[in-house]
Amino acid sequence: MSTYADRLAALREQLRRDRLDGFVVPLTDEHMSEYVGAYAQRLAWLTGFQGSAGTAVVLPQEAAIFTDGRYTLQVREQVDAEHWAYVSVPETSVSDWLGEHAADGARIGYDPWLHTRAWVEAAKAALAEKGAELIAVDTNPVDAVWPDRPEPSRARLVVHPDRFAGRGSAEKRAEIADWLASRKADAVVLSALDSIAWVLNVRGQDVERTPVALAYALVNADGTADLFVQPEKIGDDVAQHLGNAVRLHDRAAFPAALAGLAGKRVAVDPERAVAAIFARLEEGGAKTLALRDPAVLAKATKNPVEIAGHKAAQLRDGAAIVRFLHWLSIEAPKGQLTELSAAARLRAFRDETGLLEDLSFDTISAAGPNAAIPHYRVTEDSNLPIARNGIFLIDSGGQYRDGTTDITRTVIVGEPTAEMRDRFTRVLKGHIAIATARFPKGTRGQQIDAFARRPLWEAGLDYAHGTGHGVGSYLSVHEGPARIATFGGGDEPLGVGMILSNEPGYYKGGEYGIRIENLVLVREVDIAGAEREMLGFETLTFAPIDRRLIAVEMLTADERAWLNAYHAQVIEKIGPELDPDVRAWLEAECAAI
Amino acid sequence: MSTYADRLAALREQLRRDRLDGFVVPLTDEHMSEYVGAYAQRLAWLTGFQGSAGTAVVLPQEAAIFTDGRYTLQVREQVDAEHWAYVSVPETSVSDWLGEHAADGARIGYDPWLHTRAWVEAAKAALAEKGAELIAVDTNPVDAVWPDRPEPSRARLVVHPDRFAGRGSAEKRAEIADWLASRKADAVVLSALDSIAWVLNVRGQDVERTPVALAYALVNADGTADLFVQPEKIGDDVAQHLGNAVRLHDRAAFPAALAGLAGKRVAVDPERAVAAIFARLEEGGAKTLALRDPAVLAKATKNPVEIAGHKAAQLRDGAAIVRFLHWLSIEAPKGQLTELSAAARLRAFRDETGLLEDLSFDTISAAGPNAAIPHYRVTEDSNLPIARNGIFLIDSGGQYRDGTTDITRTVIVGEPTAEMRDRFTRVLKGHIAIATARFPKGTRGQQIDAFARRPLWEAGLDYAHGTGHGVGSYLSVHEGPARIATFGGGDEPLGVGMILSNEPGYYKGGEYGIRIENLVLVREVDIAGAEREMLGFETLTFAPIDRRLIAVEMLTADERAWLNAYHAQVIEKIGPELDPDVRAWLEAECAAI
Repeated sequence: MSTYADRLAALREQLRRDRLDGFVVPLTDEHMSEYVGAYAQRLAWLTGFQGSAGTAVVLPQEAAIFTDGRYTLQVREQVDAEHWAYVSVPETSVSDWLGEHAADGARIGYDPWLHTRAWVEAAKAALAEKGAELIAVDTNPVDAVWPDRPEPSRARLVVHPDRFAGRGSAEKRAEIADWLASRKADAVVLSALDSIAWVLNVRGQDVERTPVALAYALVNADGTADLFVQPEKIGDDVAQHLGNAVRLHDRAAFPAALAGLAGKRVAVDPERAVAAIFARLEEGGAKTLALRDPAVLAKATKNPVEIAGHKAAQLRDGAAIVRFLHWLSIEAPKGQLTELSAAARLRAFRDETGLLEDLSFDTISAAGPNAAIPHYRVTEDSNLPIARNGIFLIDSGGQYRDGTTDITRTVIVGEPTAEMRDRFTRVLKGHIAIATARFPKGTRGQQIDAFARRPLWEAGLDYAHGTGHGVGSYLSVHEGPARIATFGGGDEPLGVGMILSNEPGYYKGGEYGIRIENLVLVREVDIAGAEREMLGFETLTFAPIDRRLIAVEMLTADERAWLNAYHAQVIEKIGPELDPDVRAWLEAECAAI
Repeated sequence: MSTYADRLAALREQLRRDRLDGFVVPLTDEHMSEYVGAYAQRLAWLTGFQGSAGTAVVLPQEAAIFTDGRYTLQVREQVDAEHWAYVSVPETSVSDWLGEHAADGARIGYDPWLHTRAWVEAAKAALAEKGAELIAVDTNPVDAVWPDRPEPSRARLVVHPDRFAGRGSAEKRAEIADWLASRKADAVVLSALDSIAWVLNVRGQDVERTPVALAYALVNADGTADLFVQPEKIGDDVAQHLGNAVRLHDRAAFPAALAGLAGKRVAVDPERAVAAIFARLEEGGAKTLALRDPAVLAKATKNPVEIAGHKAAQLRDGAAIVRFLHWLSIEAPKGQLTELSAAARLRAFRDETGLLEDLSFDTISAAGPNAAIPHYRVTEDSNLPIARNGIFLIDSGGQYRDGTTDITRTVIVGEPTAEMRDRFTRVLKGHIAIATARFPKGTRGQQIDAFARRPLWEAGLDYAHGTGHGVGSYLSVHEGPARIATFGGGDEPLGVGMILSNEPGYYKGGEYGIRIENLVLVREVDIAGAEREMLGFETLTFAPIDRRLIAVEMLTADERAWLNAYHAQVIEKIGPELDPDVRAWLEAECAAI
């Protein structure tokens, strides 16, 4: 197996052959996916970086890897400092860095199927200042030097029936047709895989952890759709489910189909569709309308069937989590557990439900200093024992057909330090501040994000990630458009029916990390005498929060009341699912403080 | 005097003569000023609207006036519903409304010296959907039908000496020259009046309440400047102060000077320079660089001399406020005061300081239901008596050469209702939440704005304005770039040295209004064990907060401690300025609760 240094050298050699002075390697696919199939893992192959977000830029003499605050520590552990410079986004954008570092007159390559048009325009402008050029490549030079690159998955699509989806695909397509009519548009391109899955009520098996299928779709003003997917991926059941109103085409026919829309007004989402889609449409004579994919907000707004399904999944998943925490409370003090063995046991508890389709992301099972890496991913190399008097953080979730879960619990094995209790209590206060927030309709996540941070800010502390992300219905565990965060979706109003995570944290590099995460549902709240339509959150996740890490004297009376009421609900909802010994343990863990 | 209906009819007649199917009338001037000279008060002349922000659109059959949440009530009182539709921004933009209401193929006029380029582009795009056109006029049709339109002011400029400015103009221009070099630019257009005043250390008397002079300026890469101003406005003292490095030109020569910059790279602020400036430069062959006016952030970042001056102004102004509140406590119960007489008495107390140059804005002196109008302006018609058992809100400020002040106090004459105390206490809790906030360097106002709202949100209440705006140094009382707000500057990091207002409120339409406003200074804070560079606020305004309106049981121990410490500071700082009887009153008002 080649070293990462070999791979970087091979890519540089290929760039010389392609007459390029640089190349940009994002971590995404033709669908701007966050989690991508193995065939699209070019960044990991090139650099060794295992995080879920990042970009590399390779120039003749320099190379840089761009990651956000979640990966500040991880990128330094996984990517060789001898060959790569570490750059933080959003402080420095790839475009800005290119403008600074590219040589005058350089030709910098990019793959137009892996970038948005906005990215291309910003990078072009930054390079123009140096007289340098951004060049769209026809074939990706990374692929040319990656000898054993996996093929895209050929797994079959599966039907997502109405008893989980809550609404039929024809109804969803009719709604999109109405939206097209209001925009005087003839069709909309759906290139986001979860949008396609949601609109057509299908799921796939092409991407680990996210049940989507590699495809493109067009939805037309008459409510019909064109689905572009490898033919062998469609079985009879799916063909029958899709019906005559969904025409099937080979995935490879998609670029030509775009070029054939001459004279049509076609809606394309500039954040979700790659630059090549705009280029094919416009070169073919279509008029593009830059509009947000109409499935995005509709998909985020869960219907009553999806909400009921999600709650059922949460009880099932919560019981698995409680069984795991009970097991951990017995086994961890014996000193034989590791991050890997704990993650495996949790997976087994989830498998025992009989309904787990997949994890919703790679479990973050992190002991001591590894817990200080917010998006840590345990490997054989990094695997630490779960030590006495140390913190163990486990962030995990399940993909069930009725719902997608995501929960983090942080526990102490043995005795915490006073500092750990202080930090954990601040994180808990922030978590409660979100859980209990009431806000007027129209409020955006960025307006309330700091509620979760204030208890940490008061001590001069913070965490370098958002407070919450949207979660799909048996779809992406990170789902747009809304977030409880300053960046990336924080400007989207929090709408009734959205499911988001509430996950403040604290990370002490080299020592320990803390995160408390529940999922919450946005819903209307009645307040006597209210003058505005008010919204709030209903917590959906039920599992004990480790009371040994709480400095009770730091909680207000209201916060203590919230915690006790929450724990009472955990007993009430999860208790009946458990064997008597586990139940007794749970009741003790959830006793009022 | 013509009626507003006559004026609207006259404008429509003029539009017919000009072959236009509509016209847009913003409330601004050629400098995108918030407060404008009488010559530019076209919106007020046409509609009767007296607020400080709004836009009118006149079509052949319809006319609409656009205002934000501050003016929802006021616009309905001042502008005739028979002729004008009321539209709320930002919910509906002028562009969107034009796209909906303009006729197919219509020619809609605008004055390119009164709009930004972004506004023009958005309106053009919205109209293009209807095949309609946006047409730049050469002369403003409102001016053609406004017979007694005032001339622009001819008042002289005055020197703003270093003992107030803290830094010389040559130093400021040298810094801008460095900035130009870093952008490879030859010059920057300064069209914002407060930027020109700040860079050149001059002040003016052309706009009520804001000590700026009508002018344009270019600052060049060699640190010299070109100032375009009516020649008779420059006396010998100012000419000597400006020196040889600032070349003087007639204000009327500015458009031609722009057209003469062929081949130059010229920085222009797209938010502060009007579309006509870009057009003149680009038609003349200059390359425009859309960059923020380099004075904006520098001006907002007060230097030690400005901060010391501001504090001196605050003590002087605070003593005038305390004398006024003491007088009010004696006179108001007698039942003879009105909004106008109270505002006049406060003006007199400020005048008695001997150092007041002007008010910093028209005093909002508002009794009972008038206090529910956040930006109320008292007139003979609206003037209410200050009633017993009613709320009186006074929001006012002074322009002193060493600093600009802005303070709101809300007092009860007689006995408040339980609801008033509840609302006042929630507003106070919000005010304290901002005053005591600690946040990492880089935090933006929109992240902390909701700290002030949460106590109101918990009861289903809110206020329809930002929590805080920047304040200038003997300049604009509303100064960019930062705000503590969701919109308009809320995305600017709060930087050390900025002075902002902290002014949450609550408004019950038709009954009463509450606002508590102090100015605060952003500064570094030391927190033991802090892991981030932390910032916080120092409150600069000292005057009692009416304890009769506080429901003490609703305050936390920390909030009560803040209030008592604040009141102790009021006694300590303002007390020595007062006569014994007023001082004794102040000490009683500021006793600990």
